[in-house]
Amino acid sequence: MPKTKHTVRFMPDGVSVDVFAEAENLLRVALVAGVHVNASCGGSGTCGKCKVKILEGEYEADRSAKISDEQWEEGYRLACRTRVTGDLVVEVPIESRHEKGVLARLRGTGQDHVLAEKHWGAEYETVPPEPLVRKYFLELTPPSEGDNISDMGRLAQALKRDYRIDQVLGEMEMIRSLPKVLREGEWKVTATVLTGRCGNRILRVEPGDTRKNAYALAVDIGTTTIHAQLVNAFTGEKLAKAAEYNAQMSMGEDVITRIVHAIKPGGLEILQKRAVKTVNEVLKEVFDKTGVLREEVTHLVLGGNTTMTQLILGIYPRYIREAPYVPAANLFPVFPASELGIELTPRTLAYAMPCVASYVGGDITAGVLATQMHLHDELTLFMDVGTNGEIVIGNKDWMVSASASAGPAFEGGGVKFGMRASYGAIEQVRINPLDLEPMFMTIGQQKPKGICGSGMIDCIAELQQCGLISQNGKFNRELSGVTWRIREGEGGWEYVLCKAEDSQLEEDLTITEPDIDNLIRTKASIYAACSVLLKSVGLHFGDVQKIIIAGGFGQYIDVEKAMTIGLLPEVEPSKVSYGGNTSLEGCRIACLWSGKVAEAEQIGSMITNIELSVSRIYMEEYVAALFLPHTRMEEFPLRAKKLEETNKLLGEIRRAHPQENP
Amino acid sequence: MPKTKHTVRFMPDGVSVDVFAEAENLLRVALVAGVHVNASCGGSGTCGKCKVKILEGEYEADRSAKISDEQWEEGYRLACRTRVTGDLVVEVPIESRHEKGVLARLRGTGQDHVLAEKHWGAEYETVPPEPLVRKYFLELTPPSEGDNISDMGRLAQALKRDYRIDQVLGEMEMIRSLPKVLREGEWKVTATVLTGRCGNRILRVEPGDTRKNAYALAVDIGTTTIHAQLVNAFTGEKLAKAAEYNAQMSMGEDVITRIVHAIKPGGLEILQKRAVKTVNEVLKEVFDKTGVLREEVTHLVLGGNTTMTQLILGIYPRYIREAPYVPAANLFPVFPASELGIELTPRTLAYAMPCVASYVGGDITAGVLATQMHLHDELTLFMDVGTNGEIVIGNKDWMVSASASAGPAFEGGGVKFGMRASYGAIEQVRINPLDLEPMFMTIGQQKPKGICGSGMIDCIAELQQCGLISQNGKFNRELSGVTWRIREGEGGWEYVLCKAEDSQLEEDLTITEPDIDNLIRTKASIYAACSVLLKSVGLHFGDVQKIIIAGGFGQYIDVEKAMTIGLLPEVEPSKVSYGGNTSLEGCRIACLWSGKVAEAEQIGSMITNIELSVSRIYMEEYVAALFLPHTRMEEFPLRAKKLEETNKLLGEIRRAHPQENP
Ligand code: FES
Ligand code: FES
Repeated sequence: MPKTKHTVRFMPDGVSVDVFAEAENLLRVALVAGVHVNASCGGSGTCGKCKVKILEGEYEADRSAKISDEQWEEGYRLACRTRVTGDLVVEVPIESRHEKGVLARLRGTGQDHVLAEKHWGAEYETVPPEPLVRKYFLELTPPSEGDNISDMGRLAQALKRDYRIDQVLGEMEMIRSLPKVLREGEWKVTATVLTGRCGNRILRVEPGDTRKNAYALAVDIGTTTIHAQLVNAFTGEKLAKAAEYNAQMSMGEDVITRIVHAIKPGGLEILQKRAVKTVNEVLKEVFDKTGVLREEVTHLVLGGNTTMTQLILGIYPRYIREAPYVPAANLFPVFPASELGIELTPRTLAYAMPCVASYVGGDITAGVLATQMHLHDELTLFMDVGTNGEIVIGNKDWMVSASASAGPAFEGGGVKFGMRASYGAIEQVRINPLDLEPMFMTIGQQKPKGICGSGMIDCIAELQQCGLISQNGKFNRELSGVTWRIREGEGGWEYVLCKAEDSQLEEDLTITEPDIDNLIRTKASIYAACSVLLKSVGLHFGDVQKIIIAGGFGQYIDVEKAMTIGLLPEVEPSKVSYGGNTSLEGCRIACLWSGKVAEAEQIGSMITNIELSVSRIYMEEYVAALFLPHTRMEEFPLRAKKLEETNKLLGEIRRAHPQENP
Repeated sequence: MPKTKHTVRFMPDGVSVDVFAEAENLLRVALVAGVHVNASCGGSGTCGKCKVKILEGEYEADRSAKISDEQWEEGYRLACRTRVTGDLVVEVPIESRHEKGVLARLRGTGQDHVLAEKHWGAEYETVPPEPLVRKYFLELTPPSEGDNISDMGRLAQALKRDYRIDQVLGEMEMIRSLPKVLREGEWKVTATVLTGRCGNRILRVEPGDTRKNAYALAVDIGTTTIHAQLVNAFTGEKLAKAAEYNAQMSMGEDVITRIVHAIKPGGLEILQKRAVKTVNEVLKEVFDKTGVLREEVTHLVLGGNTTMTQLILGIYPRYIREAPYVPAANLFPVFPASELGIELTPRTLAYAMPCVASYVGGDITAGVLATQMHLHDELTLFMDVGTNGEIVIGNKDWMVSASASAGPAFEGGGVKFGMRASYGAIEQVRINPLDLEPMFMTIGQQKPKGICGSGMIDCIAELQQCGLISQNGKFNRELSGVTWRIREGEGGWEYVLCKAEDSQLEEDLTITEPDIDNLIRTKASIYAACSVLLKSVGLHFGDVQKIIIAGGFGQYIDVEKAMTIGLLPEVEPSKVSYGGNTSLEGCRIACLWSGKVAEAEQIGSMITNIELSVSRIYMEEYVAALFLPHTRMEEFPLRAKKLEETNKLLGEIRRAHPQENP
C-alpha cells in the first residue's frame, strides 16, 4: 500500500518535511520538523498561539475566533486546526530576530524519528482467522431409518467431512441442547468448537448460520491499566478498544505491594475481584460502543504479567515475591470466563497467555508473539516498559529475558501530572531553546490534563537539550532568572509546561525534579537490564539488529529523544520501532489464530529467564545509568557531541542576548 | 484355587450330589439335587417342614424349637439350618409311598445346572488398578536459585520422571491450591490425575501420600433399580454395594412412559432429579456402611440404558422414542458429578458408559465389557434381561445388537408378588409333581415377601413340568380338585406358593395367570430378538458357542428351567453362564482400569444395532415364541421329549392314586 506523501516547507527557516499520513495535523508536522510554534493549549484550538500563515498549497482548516476575518483572508490559520492535504508552504511568525537559522542548527535536519505505533498484526490480516474457539456452519443430512446414528455422531461426522475436524467431544450443556437445536435449525446449524491441544470440544450449537456473530476479546491486565479490544472472530475486524485504570491501584502501584496485600487474609479475593471489576468496566465500554451481545463472545484471551495473571485467576502469589521467585504455574487451562466473575456467559472460554517466570509474564509472551521476534533471524531487543521493565533479547533460535523493577513512571505513576496515554495527555513536547517556551500536543487535541510516557521522554530530553536540566536531572537554577517557567514549587524545582488557564487543571501543569528523578531511575533500570542480558550472552548493543520498544507511552514515541535520555542505546534510528501495547496486540492475535496460541506456548517454554536480583553486575550497571543519557558517555558518542555543541551555542547566544529571554 | 467338594447322598432315593461351595445350606443342596423337602418358609427356619435325619457325616446345624431333644438325639435337623462341611448321608422323610423312584425318574440325574452369578472381573483382579482418575505420590526437589521453574512445572516434571505421564495440564482449582499444598507437604504430595483421550489433567494435589484414600463408585442406573458399588481405586478392593428402586418408578415402569413424562414442560427436570435422589440414597448407604468420606471419591462411572443415561444427564430424550429413534449422543464427556446434583465434591468426576443406540445403552456396553465377549473368538450370545431385553451377538471381530421391549417381569414388574432380588425374595422353587407341594428358598433365608426373577423362572418351569399349567400358560383347572393350591383368586386362576402365615405378607403369596402371561411375553420377546439377530447375520442357535444371561434375576439361575420356559434356546447347559448385574460389573471395571474405558468406547462404536421395530420377521418370531417353551417344538427337542414322558408318567400315577393328592 503506497503511502500518501506531501512536502511541507516552513518559512523563514526553510525547513522541509515529508508528511506520510493522510490529513496530518499541521501543528504535529511543525513539531516533528523541529519548527517552533508557541502552541500552549496542546492543539485544542483554544490558546490561539499556533497561528501561522499559509503561503501556498492545499489544506483544510477550521475557522476560529482567534483569527479575524482580515487575517483569514491573508491566509492566517491555527496550525492545530489545519490538516495537510497537499504540498504546502507555511510561514511561521518569528518572535525573536535571532531565531532564524539558530533553531535549525540546534535541531538538525528536521528528519522525522517519531515512530507511530506499529501495527504488528498487519501481516496476519490477510489470513482469515482460525481462532481457538471457532464457529463452523454445517448442513447435516436428516436421520432416516437406515441412518439413525446419534445427533452428536451426526454432528461429528459433518465436522469431519466438511472441515476435517475429528476427535470431537461434546460439552454436556451442548449435548443437552442438541436434539432441539438440530431440529429447530432443520439440520442446518453452527457449531462452536474449541480446538484443544489434542481433541476438539463442541461448546455450543445454534440453529442456522451464525458464523459472523462470533466475537473475541483481547484483554491486557496491566498493573496500572486494563485494556480490552473486541474483534470479530470470523472476519478479524477490530471493533473497539477500551481501557481503565486497574481498580487494584488503590492497593499499591506495583506488583510487590499487591502481593503483600494478596497474602493477607482475604486479600487475594479482594484483589481478584477488583481486577475483574475493571475488566467488567472495559468490557461494558466495548459492548456499549459496538452493540455486540455478550452471548456472542466465544472467547477471551488474557495477557498480564505473572502477578496480574495469578491475581485475576485467584492464585496465591506469595512465592512470586520470595526467593527463589517461583510462580504457581506458567501454563493455564482454558476455563469459562464467568468463573472468575467476568460478566460473560458460561460458554465464553478464557485463555491466559503463558508466563515465563515470576517477573516475565503473559504480557511479554504476547509481546514477543505480536512482534514476531521468535520467527526471525535478526537479533532483536524487545523492551516492554510498563510498571516493570521487561526485556527479551534473542531471535528464532534462542531468547533470554529479564525484568527490572522500573516503576510506572512512563505510565504516569510517580509523576506529579503523569497520566496514561488517553485523551488530554500531552504526548509530544518541544521546547524552544531560545525563549525556553514549550510547544506540545495532546492526545485527541484536547486541553491538557496530564502528561503521558512519550510526553515525558520528549520533555526531559528537551529540558536537557535546552540546558534547563543538568545530566543528573537537576534544574539549572540560574535559568529561573531567564524564564518564569523554571520555579521553586511546593515539591521543589519545576518547569511549568502549561498554565492552568490553558489546561483542564486547577493548577499549572509542571514537571518536577522528583518526576525527573523517577524517570531517570526507571530508564536506568531498563537500560541496565538490557546491558546485563546482552553481557550474559556475550553480546553488546552493537550486535542488536532491531529494537522494539513497547508499553503505554502514547501513540508517538521519538527515538532520538529516547536515546537522548538514555532509555534506548544509541543505535541507527531506523533499527528502532515502537510497538505500543504489544501485550494487547499479542492477545488479539492469539484470539484470532489458534496456531499463534501454540506459538505463544512455545515462546513461553523457549525463553531463558535471568534473575537480575541475583546478578552481580546489575546494580553496577544501574548506578552507571543514573545519568542523562549515561555516565559512560562513550556509549552515546553522538549524544555527547551534540550536547557539547548545543551547550556551546546556547551559551554564546545567551551571553549575547540575555535581554531577549522574557 | 481348588474348590471344596463334598458329596451328599439323599436316602431313600439314593440321589447323590456334589457340593462345591463351603458350608452350603443343606436345603439348597436338596433343592438342586431334585430331592423334595416340603420347605414352605423359604428356609427361614420357621415352618419346621424341612426336617431331615442325618445318617452320617460332618455338618453344622442350629438348634430349633421345631425339633424335640429326642429327635435331635436321633439326628433330626432342619435342612435349612444345616451347613454341609463334609460328605453326608441324609434321610428325607417320604410322605407318599410312591415317591421313591418316581421323583428320580421325573427329575433326571440331580445334576446341578444352577448357575451362581459369575464374577466376570476375576481375571482383572490380578492387575493393580490403573483408573481413569488416579493418584500418584511424588517427592519433588524443592526449588532453588538455579531451579526456580513454576510449581506446576515442577509437578509436571516429577510426573513425567516418576510415572512417564506427560502433556499434563492443571485444573485451575488445583493450580490455586498448589503453592500452599507443595510447601505444606514439604514437597511430598499426591496428585490426582485424570487420564484423558489425550493429555492428562491434574485435578487435585494433597500433602503427603494419600494414594490409598482413593475411592471410586460404579453406579448402574436401571429403569427399575439403581445399584451402586464402592471400590478402593488404589487396591481394587470391593467395599460395599447398595441398591434402591429408581424414584422415577412412580412416573412409569418403562422407558417409554418416562420419555413421555420427560418431554412435558418441566418433566425432564423432575425425572433427572428423581434419579439423582435415588443415586444419593444408594451412595449414602455405601458411605454409611464403610465410613468412606465423600471427598475421597475420585470418580464415578455411570451405566444405564440410553434413556436412563439421557435422563440422569438432563438430556431431552424425545427423539429416542420417535422414529427413526435417534439418541442425542452415545459418547459423553467427563464432568463433575456434583453438576448433576450428586452429593459429591466438585472434584469427583463422572463418566457415563458409552451407548450404542436408542435402545442399547451404556448398561450393555458395560455388560459386554464385563463379560469380555469383545475379546474372544467364540460366538457369544449376551442377553441382558432388565426392563428391556437387550441382546448382543458376536465376538472380538463383530457384534450386532437389538433391544426387545420385554417389560420388567423378571425384575418383579407386572408380577403380583414380583420383587427385585433382595432379602426375602423367593429365588429358587421346586414343586413336587406328586403332591404338587412347593419347596423354595429365599434370599437371605428370610420369610418370603415376594418372588424375584430366578424364582419366577423356576416356578413357571415347575408349574408346567407338573402339568399345573399348559404350554400356553393357563392353569389346568381340573387339578384344583386335586390340590387346594390351585384356585380362582380375585385376579383369575393362581397357584398358592406360600401361605400368608409362612410369609411376611398379609395374604397368600401366589403366582397368577396374568403373571405367567406377562412372563411368557417377556421371554418370547427376548427369544424372538435372539432369533432375528442370528438370522440377520445368517446364523442360528446351533452356532452359538457361549450364552451369557445377565440381569437382576437373583443370585441363582437354573439353566434347565430357563430352557424349559423357552427363555434360553436348548443348548448344552455348560455353554451358559449367568452374569448377574453385568452393567454394574462393567462400571466397576471401568472405574478401575482406564484401558477398559477405552475398550468400552470401542465396543460402543463396534456394535451394529438392528431395529426390531422395523424388522419384518420380528413380530412373527415373537408370536411363535408365545408358548412354553415355543410353538416350534423342534427347536426344543429334549424339552419336547421330556414333556411328553412326564405327562405320560404323571397321568399314569394320578389315574392310579387320585386319593394320595390332598
Ligand atoms: S490554538 Fe493551536 S495550539 Fe493552542
Ligand atoms: S424350617 Fe426349614 S424350610 Fe421352613
